[in-house]
Amino acid sequence: MPAERLGKEAVVRGFLTKITSISKDLCFAGIHRGTLKQEFQVVCHGTALCEQLRSIRLHSAVRVKGKLVQKRKQNDAEPREPNTRKNVVHHRTVEVVAAEILCLNSVADDVHISKDHNYPPQSRHLQIRFDESLKRRLHIRSRVASYIREQLIGSFLEIETPILFKSSPEGAREFLVPTRKPGYAYALPQSPQQYKQILMAAGVERYFQFAKCFRDEDLRAIRQPEFTQLDVEIAYADGGVVMRRIEALIKGIYAKFVQPRGLLEKSLPDSPFIRMTYEEAMSKHGSDKPDLRIKGLIHRIDNVIPDELRGMLTSIEDPIIEVCKLRFDCEPERVQAFMRKLMDSPDAEPFISNVDGAPGFCVYDSRKPVEGLQTFGFEGAEKLKALYSDLRHPGYQSEEVHAINSTFEDGDLLIIQARQNLPHSGGSTILGKLRLAIHKAAVADGLIKPDPDHHYLWVTEFPMFTPNNDTDPGQGGTSGFSATHHPFTAPLSPEDVDLLLTDPLKAKADHYDLVVNGVELGGGSRRIHSAEMQKFVMRDIIKMSEERMNDFSHLFEALRSGCPPHAGLAIGFDRLIAVMTGVESVKDVIFFPKNSKGEDVMVKSPAPMTNAELSRYHLQLKSPVRTEEAGEKGETSSEEKVEEMKPEPPSRA
Amino acid sequence: MPAERLGKEAVVRGFLTKITSISKDLCFAGIHRGTLKQEFQVVCHGTALCEQLRSIRLHSAVRVKGKLVQKRKQNDAEPREPNTRKNVVHHRTVEVVAAEILCLNSVADDVHISKDHNYPPQSRHLQIRFDESLKRRLHIRSRVASYIREQLIGSFLEIETPILFKSSPEGAREFLVPTRKPGYAYALPQSPQQYKQILMAAGVERYFQFAKCFRDEDLRAIRQPEFTQLDVEIAYADGGVVMRRIEALIKGIYAKFVQPRGLLEKSLPDSPFIRMTYEEAMSKHGSDKPDLRIKGLIHRIDNVIPDELRGMLTSIEDPIIEVCKLRFDCEPERVQAFMRKLMDSPDAEPFISNVDGAPGFCVYDSRKPVEGLQTFGFEGAEKLKALYSDLRHPGYQSEEVHAINSTFEDGDLLIIQARQNLPHSGGSTILGKLRLAIHKAAVADGLIKPDPDHHYLWVTEFPMFTPNNDTDPGQGGTSGFSATHHPFTAPLSPEDVDLLLTDPLKAKADHYDLVVNGVELGGGSRRIHSAEMQKFVMRDIIKMSEERMNDFSHLFEALRSGCPPHAGLAIGFDRLIAVMTGVESVKDVIFFPKNSKGEDVMVKSPAPMTNAELSRYHLQLKSPVRTEEAGEKGETSSEEKVEEMKPEPPSRA
Repeated sequence: MPAERLGKEAVVRGFLTKITSISKDLCFAGIHRGTLKQEFQVVCHGTALCEQLRSIRLHSAVRVKGKLVQKRKQNDAEPREPNTRKNVVHHRTVEVVAAEILCLNSVADDVHISKDHNYPPQSRHLQIRFDESLKRRLHIRSRVASYIREQLIGSFLEIETPILFKSSPEGAREFLVPTRKPGYAYALPQSPQQYKQILMAAGVERYFQFAKCFRDEDLRAIRQPEFTQLDVEIAYADGGVVMRRIEALIKGIYAKFVQPRGLLEKSLPDSPFIRMTYEEAMSKHGSDKPDLRIKGLIHRIDNVIPDELRGMLTSIEDPIIEVCKLRFDCEPERVQAFMRKLMDSPDAEPFISNVDGAPGFCVYDSRKPVEGLQTFGFEGAEKLKALYSDLRHPGYQSEEVHAINSTFEDGDLLIIQARQNLPHSGGSTILGKLRLAIHKAAVADGLIKPDPDHHYLWVTEFPMFTPNNDTDPGQGGTSGFSATHHPFTAPLSPEDVDLLLTDPLKAKADHYDLVVNGVELGGGSRRIHSAEMQKFVMRDIIKMSEERMNDFSHLFEALRSGCPPHAGLAIGFDRLIAVMTGVESVKDVIFFPKNSKGEDVMVKSPAPMTNAELSRYHLQLKSPVRTEEAGEKGETSSEEKVEEMKPEPPSRA
Repeated sequence: MPAERLGKEAVVRGFLTKITSISKDLCFAGIHRGTLKQEFQVVCHGTALCEQLRSIRLHSAVRVKGKLVQKRKQNDAEPREPNTRKNVVHHRTVEVVAAEILCLNSVADDVHISKDHNYPPQSRHLQIRFDESLKRRLHIRSRVASYIREQLIGSFLEIETPILFKSSPEGAREFLVPTRKPGYAYALPQSPQQYKQILMAAGVERYFQFAKCFRDEDLRAIRQPEFTQLDVEIAYADGGVVMRRIEALIKGIYAKFVQPRGLLEKSLPDSPFIRMTYEEAMSKHGSDKPDLRIKGLIHRIDNVIPDELRGMLTSIEDPIIEVCKLRFDCEPERVQAFMRKLMDSPDAEPFISNVDGAPGFCVYDSRKPVEGLQTFGFEGAEKLKALYSDLRHPGYQSEEVHAINSTFEDGDLLIIQARQNLPHSGGSTILGKLRLAIHKAAVADGLIKPDPDHHYLWVTEFPMFTPNNDTDPGQGGTSGFSATHHPFTAPLSPEDVDLLLTDPLKAKADHYDLVVNGVELGGGSRRIHSAEMQKFVMRDIIKMSEERMNDFSHLFEALRSGCPPHAGLAIGFDRLIAVMTGVESVKDVIFFPKNSKGEDVMVKSPAPMTNAELSRYHLQLKSPVRTEEAGEKGETSSEEKVEEMKPEPPSRA
């Protein structure tokens, strides 16, 4: 504050966070302003004022009027030299001599309030008020959003698209918003995808939005029913343009908000982020979101291993056998003990009972027969070592890492796993999941040194379509597969267009995901800009019904008006902030998150609907539940399984 | 662009907007970039290239590769001097000599496309592409949002609050979002009011948000089911602090975006906006959102008029009689003719059939007996003129306007109207509405000169409560009245706290509305920060049930934790942009607005719900409608009237 304020009347408002009684008629008080760590010192002279101060409950909102003076040094009769720089004094070097103290709003007697209390989610306001680390993350969130806007505004137009949209089979399950027109509803958007494509047809060349998106999915740690996406679309662009723009943005964010905090060993590279094809990611990392902190890669060893071992690993006919070698920072015996403990734990159960066969392990140990690789037999072990010494050096690994990966040292763990001889699809292989689980447990046990850095990469060339599964609703076509990204994604090359006709599951899309340390931060694609191509993909490839196709008629119309080619992407903003600030859950970077049941336990949402409310929308519950005594027995006749949430009767019906 | 690009290879991408054929082998083309009015000229030499160009449908997306050169002057063999300033050339002074032309996406043959076509809302993408004035407004919208952020970030924190909230009786009807927990729903927020108050308790001192808000109300021209609010809250502030901050923001916006365009005669004043009490607004302007473009004020003339006239005007016992004088820029005869026409029109019907009595009119005319005021009788006319010459000069009117208002001239129209002798409540009086209608019609007919300026003011000191009416749901208490603003609004002064106990309808609130030219742009209040006061107002004054009070338990908890006093406001951002850009409807400043039935006719939302979707939420339609043949006859058993939207059966059930 300006030094000239010294000696003047001052008013301080804030939370009373500290009272230090020196004597009956001398007290010090700390007053905290809402902003991070800003605390003012107040001095109270006189019995009356001191008594008044002591009568106020800590953490109440107070107002103090008085005179602003330089703080005295302890046991010092003279005030400090006005340690001013450019006529500015720091709030920590001054204090207010109180003339009047007013409690503006007292903490109620029965409210437990203190700095160090661990507040439950019901008291989110006190979590935010007292958890300095949460507060810092929430502040960073606001500042990063502001920085992103600064960077984009000028060349991009920030545009709000509607929240009241309509149900359309893009891929995720949508929330409905019934209207007073009987039988009609809005749907909340899973993304502004269709509106932003319409904007391209409308002549907007560069669009962005911090978009509120909604998915009525089973909730995972990483998902919230509502979340915020940084949504971007660029006309006349292909994937490369979008990736370069977003990369520059991410590097800017790191330079400003992450690197100065000194938590990473290395800055993000000046060179472009690694680009890795889906095929490389799945075959070498067992995941479409590789965690590059894990150095050991996956290799096929079908031709290396003895038939006998193959038969022990799996009952699959003509299987693919893969191995992954991880280097531990310890003795072979500790690795053996670690693996025994891990494989005995309940977490290992899905790996052991896996239908493709349980995994095999061995630990390299130069003191043992066949160096601990006896499982492979003598010949097999030699072939394996030859395979490792001949490994291709992937461009995205350093010389040093490649040297570790292609040699054997005591304590190296080999994980062996069989799988079906089929093209890759979906997000991971069993071996990929196992590699991740072992690495995580080994880091937790201190057997592998943690890598503090953030390894960004782009995963590209995804297959255009993925066979249907039980969890993703897809687009409801009868082809047996659905769009991997969404049905608006363009084929990668003319060859992939040809493949649509002959072998669509082999066609690749111009689809790219931004991945960091095993987390998918965002994804995007070049879009189909030809209405005919869009209809062909929906009708003839995915085999959607005419009725569902009609849900997209607005999009066809937009494309038919000479819509420019365009590409874009969406980044999970909550996830970006979680990764940047080093927390696992997005709940820790959202002011008012929902819990894993989709509830805001502070405001108690969702809440029971009243009959009057239902009537307004011409609706009723499918099986009326008894109001008072139904309790846990509340019935539902719905054929659909109620996932995650246990049925409970409305108490307000 | 940099002058050094001249002579280099260039690629232009955009819409092909113009083809000028000079000869078989010379054509010019115009290529439009999405940004405002940026058009590039392309020259095509050679028969093949010209033919190719001519084969492309206008407004298709194209890419041209070629060489960038300085434009030649017409009939000039030599290229123009490179008219460069600071080594920069304007895109209008250069052209691209085409080497290759590619149509990236053709306009489909059956799509009518042209610059001057008046596109229906179904083709919103073409409205945005071709309506320059709409495009300009939408651009301004984005730029104003960005400017507001620039101004607030630094001292305010921009925070996202949840869209999936819960139903709570604040005042407006809410949309519901059913969940898979049977009988439970989220509600879409009518405003982030409760979350922002929780933020104050959480120690956030200055919050803002561009908040998406939702109201399931009958739609008026000025309302959309979803809209954007600039939402602001400040801890330790009272109304004055908030009003000053917002005023500075509005003035900044005008200085940057409105005044430079020269549409206003006067800039916004340097002095603070006028502050007018609700009582003054209602009694002198007949409205709680006075339109200061209308100069003539309303005055009570109970003591002036003869009993006879009173009897003719109304059958109310002991009525209030008011008069408003408007000055016309024309002869008395034209005013007479104008009023006859207006009162014969259907718009006048509600005024004529009004239960308080039809209005009376007279036109001042110095050539006539009693100067045209014979209705008042000789004595009455004298008293009336005396009243006018003695009028108090309100501080918010100029000397000039006050001179007009306090004197009589030929053609002055007097409008006389009776009303019940009751305290003011609600938004307007009959005379206020009539004054507005007459002024509007007179401006439209050229009889009153339009005032191009934007007259901002704050209306303050609203009554804390308003008697219940049929249209606003209120808070469902049994007191017969509801909070005028919302139930969190604080009483204005200690006297108003006392009035809560004795005569709550007389209590005033610290509630302020921002009004411009008869439009309520936003409103705010100081909030109740004491949990006990909040409960007292809800339970003992509004008389809400304990059950409904429970809906606010999170807010009570937040206040009980020593929440600082706070005040805030919300501005209708859509309305602000509409007012600034001089359009009547917010639809003209929203990229994808809903129509008056709440429909987005381009994407066709809302859409019919399927039985599967309803089942997922354990719901069914109250009276199942027949699927195919029901047509317009679709039945509904709901007791509730379906306002605005005609019942139609789902076609996809």
